[in-house]
Amino acid sequence: MSVWLGRVTVVLKASVNDPQGLAVLDGLHAMGYSEVEQVRVGKHIDVRLGADNFEQAEQRLHHMCEALLANTLIESYTVEVGAPEEAAR
Amino acid sequence: MSVWLGRVTVVLKASVNDPQGLAVLDGLHAMGYSEVEQVRVGKHIDVRLGADNFEQAEQRLHHMCEALLANTLIESYTVEVGAPEEAAR
Repeated sequence: MSVWLGRVTVVLKASVNDPQGLAVLDGLHAMGYSEVEQVRVGKHIDVRLGADNFEQAEQRLHHMCEALLANTLIESYTVEVGAPEEAAR
Repeated sequence: MSVWLGRVTVVLKASVNDPQGLAVLDGLHAMGYSEVEQVRVGKHIDVRLGADNFEQAEQRLHHMCEALLANTLIESYTVEVGAPEEAAR
């Protein structure tokens, strides 16, 4: 079994209002970054997990997203699995 | 001038305690995902901005990270600039 690094990105769907993003946009404008048109704030979640292979790691991460990490009613997510580190076991 | 999509990822430095990540880890374990070893939660920020070229977009995004988007005392950040969309102006 190897250790894998899953990088999960969870963002609000485009149709969902993002007050945190609007607040950041206002802040950037107030600081002079007038070229910024839109800001959307989401979550970045690094998950270190053990799995037998790439496919298993990816599948388990998708399950975790559906079950806990994302609210799929209003959020979408992407999963990337990074190169495995050989675990000493 | 084109419109660029900056993807900023802000994560806590490795030496900084991450209670949100620990809470997610506990939740995953309670749901049976015992193969998960570590969870770190950060921010994913999509920034649409106008810029003359790739280098300018990247440079301005780095400035925004230093000024507002990241707390560089405890957080590190990465900036990726996506393919430009030709703006109608």
